[in-house]
Amino acid sequence: MIYFHNDYSEGCHEKVLEKLIQTNLEQTPGYGTDTYCASAARKIKAACGREDVDVHFLVGGTQANLTVIDAALRPHQGALCAVSGHINVHETGAVEATGHKVLPLPSADGKITAAQVADAVNAHWADDSFEHIAQPKLVYISNPTELGTLYSLQELEELAAVCRDKKLYLFLDGARMGYGLAATGYDVTLADIARLCDVFYIGGTKVGALFGEAVVISNPALKEDFRYLIKQHGGMLAKGRLLGVQFDALFTDNLYFDISIHAIKMADQLRACFDELGVGYLVPGITNQIFPVLSDELLAELAENFMFTEMERVDDSHRCVRFCTSWATKQENMDALCAELKRLSGK
Amino acid sequence: MIYFHNDYSEGCHEKVLEKLIQTNLEQTPGYGTDTYCASAARKIKAACGREDVDVHFLVGGTQANLTVIDAALRPHQGALCAVSGHINVHETGAVEATGHKVLPLPSADGKITAAQVADAVNAHWADDSFEHIAQPKLVYISNPTELGTLYSLQELEELAAVCRDKKLYLFLDGARMGYGLAATGYDVTLADIARLCDVFYIGGTKVGALFGEAVVISNPALKEDFRYLIKQHGGMLAKGRLLGVQFDALFTDNLYFDISIHAIKMADQLRACFDELGVGYLVPGITNQIFPVLSDELLAELAENFMFTEMERVDDSHRCVRFCTSWATKQENMDALCAELKRLSGK
Amino acid sequence: MIYFHNDYSEGCHEKVLEKLIQTNLEQTPGYGTDTYCASAARKIKAACGREDVDVHFLVGGTQANLTVIDAALRPHQGALCAVSGHINVHETGAVEATGHKVLPLPSADGKITAAQVADAVNAHWADDSFEHIAQPKLVYISNPTELGTLYSLQELEELAAVCRDKKLYLFLDGARMGYGLAATGYDVTLADIARLCDVFYIGGTKVGALFGEAVVISNPALKEDFRYLIKQHGGMLAKGRLLGVQFDALFTDNLYFDISIHAIKMADQLRACFDELGVGYLVPGITNQIFPVLSDELLAELAENFMFTEMERVDDSHRCVRFCTSWATKQENMDALCAELKRLSGK
Amino acid sequence: MIYFHNDYSEGCHEKVLEKLIQTNLEQTPGYGTDTYCASAARKIKAACGREDVDVHFLVGGTQANLTVIDAALRPHQGALCAVSGHINVHETGAVEATGHKVLPLPSADGKITAAQVADAVNAHWADDSFEHIAQPKLVYISNPTELGTLYSLQELEELAAVCRDKKLYLFLDGARMGYGLAATGYDVTLADIARLCDVFYIGGTKVGALFGEAVVISNPALKEDFRYLIKQHGGMLAKGRLLGVQFDALFTDNLYFDISIHAIKMADQLRACFDELGVGYLVPGITNQIFPVLSDELLAELAENFMFTEMERVDDSHRCVRFCTSWATKQENMDALCAELKRLSGK
Repeated sequence: MIYFHNDYSEGCHEKVLEKLIQTNLEQTPGYGTDTYCASAARKIKAACGREDVDVHFLVGGTQANLTVIDAALRPHQGALCAVSGHINVHETGAVEATGHKVLPLPSADGKITAAQVADAVNAHWADDSFEHIAQPKLVYISNPTELGTLYSLQELEELAAVCRDKKLYLFLDGARMGYGLAATGYDVTLADIARLCDVFYIGGTKVGALFGEAVVISNPALKEDFRYLIKQHGGMLAKGRLLGVQFDALFTDNLYFDISIHAIKMADQLRACFDELGVGYLVPGITNQIFPVLSDELLAELAENFMFTEMERVDDSHRCVRFCTSWATKQENMDALCAELKRLSGK
Repeated sequence: MIYFHNDYSEGCHEKVLEKLIQTNLEQTPGYGTDTYCASAARKIKAACGREDVDVHFLVGGTQANLTVIDAALRPHQGALCAVSGHINVHETGAVEATGHKVLPLPSADGKITAAQVADAVNAHWADDSFEHIAQPKLVYISNPTELGTLYSLQELEELAAVCRDKKLYLFLDGARMGYGLAATGYDVTLADIARLCDVFYIGGTKVGALFGEAVVISNPALKEDFRYLIKQHGGMLAKGRLLGVQFDALFTDNLYFDISIHAIKMADQLRACFDELGVGYLVPGITNQIFPVLSDELLAELAENFMFTEMERVDDSHRCVRFCTSWATKQENMDALCAELKRLSGK
Repeated sequence: MIYFHNDYSEGCHEKVLEKLIQTNLEQTPGYGTDTYCASAARKIKAACGREDVDVHFLVGGTQANLTVIDAALRPHQGALCAVSGHINVHETGAVEATGHKVLPLPSADGKITAAQVADAVNAHWADDSFEHIAQPKLVYISNPTELGTLYSLQELEELAAVCRDKKLYLFLDGARMGYGLAATGYDVTLADIARLCDVFYIGGTKVGALFGEAVVISNPALKEDFRYLIKQHGGMLAKGRLLGVQFDALFTDNLYFDISIHAIKMADQLRACFDELGVGYLVPGITNQIFPVLSDELLAELAENFMFTEMERVDDSHRCVRFCTSWATKQENMDALCAELKRLSGK
Repeated sequence: MIYFHNDYSEGCHEKVLEKLIQTNLEQTPGYGTDTYCASAARKIKAACGREDVDVHFLVGGTQANLTVIDAALRPHQGALCAVSGHINVHETGAVEATGHKVLPLPSADGKITAAQVADAVNAHWADDSFEHIAQPKLVYISNPTELGTLYSLQELEELAAVCRDKKLYLFLDGARMGYGLAATGYDVTLADIARLCDVFYIGGTKVGALFGEAVVISNPALKEDFRYLIKQHGGMLAKGRLLGVQFDALFTDNLYFDISIHAIKMADQLRACFDELGVGYLVPGITNQIFPVLSDELLAELAENFMFTEMERVDDSHRCVRFCTSWATKQENMDALCAELKRLSGK
């Protein structure tokens, strides 16, 4: 069985592992106050092109999301997001468990627009009884989204502008950020994200690390006391240096970006295969996630040797499924998948 | 200016006031442990046709909703409701502030169906990663709904059946219950509600009391320690007897139902007037809330002497508005409103 | 049976009731936006000697405490208070239910000192791992305290100074404020409290109203969006004018202070009686609460006609109990109590 | 500089690391559903002598504490613990952030007694207004405690008995469990703990793992839906197999216990050294934590080469400090520390 159903099936990249092995018996202070975390933070600031940001390392995405949002909001404030946003559908109500309402906006492709945000905020303040309604105060976007789509630079600029104008925070969930930044033809850089967002994170779990998300805070209003929030929500790793060591490795010699490019190369090969076979997509994309629509018959046969994720049914005999590539995808496995797809399609 | 924009513009019914005056200087124990609360509870049980329910008196609707839902759910569980449900849109995220996700279902008329509930629950358990999704465990309905519609007996039976089948709690918000039960031709009784719901409340604030909602719990699993929850959420009135005195008066000599009938009579007169004028409705109804669609021109003139609530815009020159009647609506005011409507319509 | 066990056994003062009766059928806007609330707020501001405060009316004390504290604090911040403070012992963990830790300080008399606050704050910041500890950010005091004691003007000045110095909020629970301000020889005025506290409330429930606490916010940082918090925590009364009407009556013609003086006169009579009988107190006091230490034998006989509250056992044959007077205490009942105490003491 | 100030300064034991390296590029399902987690759970059940427990792997101690307590309690219920308990003092109010009050009991040595628990529960139910007080429902103990002390088998049996009797859950925080079980002469086994506690965890972070705590649930009432709670609180590791792999290694060939014995051997050597020097302790102990009282002068000199933790000041010239040993403590470092202590003491 070869796994293509997600991008966290393996451990970590060999260079990350090496550094963990090398440093294993070193003695360091705990809770992220060690020199590895400091070094990783410096490298991330450099990659962001900003010295004035704070960098914190958390273990996972749900943890990062709930901690950032709880730190940013007062009790009556909520987070606008796409109805398909991870915080709205796949985190067991983690944001609500911190007391805050998630305010979903309709979305077909996983993205929301500046106009939607403006409308929602205007509608709030136009309501006679606005105090009876959770106040929108933060915009949560994921980029790439849960559907593998990407915000263009212009879309991000517009979202940032509307957030500044309406006094909202813009928070970008970058669990798969590497696979966005590396996508062929994508016009957004890490520096753009650091310039436009009040807070965001750079995903490690899905991009070369065993685990870890690097939260980058640029808005000074969000910096104060953030470490308390990490601790309170159970996210402060005793051996915090494990996060520092990993991100230090990932941000040395362009590793984070290079391994992301590998995943995109693998995904592009699979997209070319589907295109050749005339297969359509639920949502077109250029990142490491691919959502083809395939026949039940083909899927049943494919499932004997390959693991993928079932998405929604499209019609009586077709279903959308998801294939993921990652830094760890082997060329031989991708070749095998493409060959099998062609064989099953009779080509 | 005559107010028709809501059903809580006045104080309380004279018989309720009388009893408050009579008992004002009596000394009673606090926090709802007095004989008036006991008497009111007995009368409510009798009206429900069930001796085995617990009755608690809370001050207001949002308080009742958040207290019941927080008492019923474990942290990871959520409340299914219509997207237009009061807990989803007009309580400032009060349910989320207790840590629970509200799980909205689409609805055009303020109601949800047993099939929608079954589908949502089935979809939850069919998901491979159901533990990543808030678990539906309670169904919140309002009856009458926020749009003045009513569940038929069959619809309630079906909702109760699906809740029993799926092990969900059925919670009915009866903030305007009197105006539903009194509606001409409505086939549901208080006893039906007490038989079918796990927990519900009988609204006093909008039906004759200064304030107060009587929470009735029939499911034994929801009874334990409920008073702690009331206290913890700031809902335990020191002079709890104020609630007992009011509900005792309301449930003496059929007062609650008689004053509800008055409101319906007033509303039926207004509906007859609109029908005569050929006015259409956003949603048709038989309770104390009426949602006609009127021209901007007429509304502008009407607003000089009458207060009503603006709802959504329907087209460039028409808007839906809301008129409410209540136990306190004066015949002369209703006559004046109908006369003015006819005059403005040139009839 | 004559009740002296608390100060909320009766309804409301006749002048408050009169005004409720007079205004009962008036139509007003809801949720505290009516002219009665506005008028009451103006009178309270005048009584405070400050125009720049915000005044909000809530239904009860626990509700006021949890709403103010949740509005003031970020998630990782806690409230310092006496170990005997109401929020620490008698509110079913209501503050914790909003996510905040109560940080108790030792106290024998219900009060805490500026030095204790300074020490606690200094200890926090001196700790190497302060981010692992809830951050003290607000000081909660009750005045009068739960033990009937009072902060002197100097003590309040010192607390206010340390709070300003350490950037903490000073929050005063004035559930029994009238009975403090009216105490014979007390040197603190309402204007002092309004000058020294960031936020406080003036209790109505125990001082002449059916219910209601007037929250006064002087620190601008605490004013923003407070009404959302009231609504979210279920404290926004639909017929908000009931609170306005009551506080308007209480702050007309000095009523609040006059009726408080009555309660103190009654309490002073009882203290004189105990003094005459040579009875000692758990804590000496000058407010409406008296904590004498009496023999079990006497208490058993007294309990046949009088209700009082059992406090802690002092030795094998003596117990501390609490007697409360209030605006409603009748002279004849106090005479009867004193006479019975003397009779049972053989005097 | 040699670190003795805590037991989490290094990475993980070499056998754990080896297994992580070996399995690094294997593809496994996520979120703890892999075969390594299953294998580790089996081995832990065997070590506990119980097949009927559920085993879950969490990343850290604060996360385990807040998740277990939030899963176990209804909103109005609180956790009894020693005033020095980790949840009360060093988790930034994490338990309160889930809405639950921590109910501290006085303790000089980090432990609480069955009698204290019984008294607290009895006092709760004896209170007339018990519904105004957070209800004690769970007893949190750490073993070893934060002060390095241990509960004897009899003490644990008594605590378990009082919990059963009073219908409380007994929850044991075993962050340092290995260093307790391995302590010379200690009479409690892992099977005892599994028999007596409703839920507990076996600490990996401080005992040979990079991170990880194995939560063991024996009470069926606490098992339902626990994985939802892990996810909701951000504790569900995407690459959950990292926890399984580590605990599988630790519970293979007695590794967890053997490496704990090493730490105790090191600690015993240090205790022998202090005894020889006539040094006293704040609290005597037999685990891997040692709390000697030393002169400021000696500490100043010692601090040049050795790291330890400052605890409380004992008198003008003496302070209590903490030394920790661990699975990773090197014999040569311990020898160096003992030699330096003797040199500085002039022996």
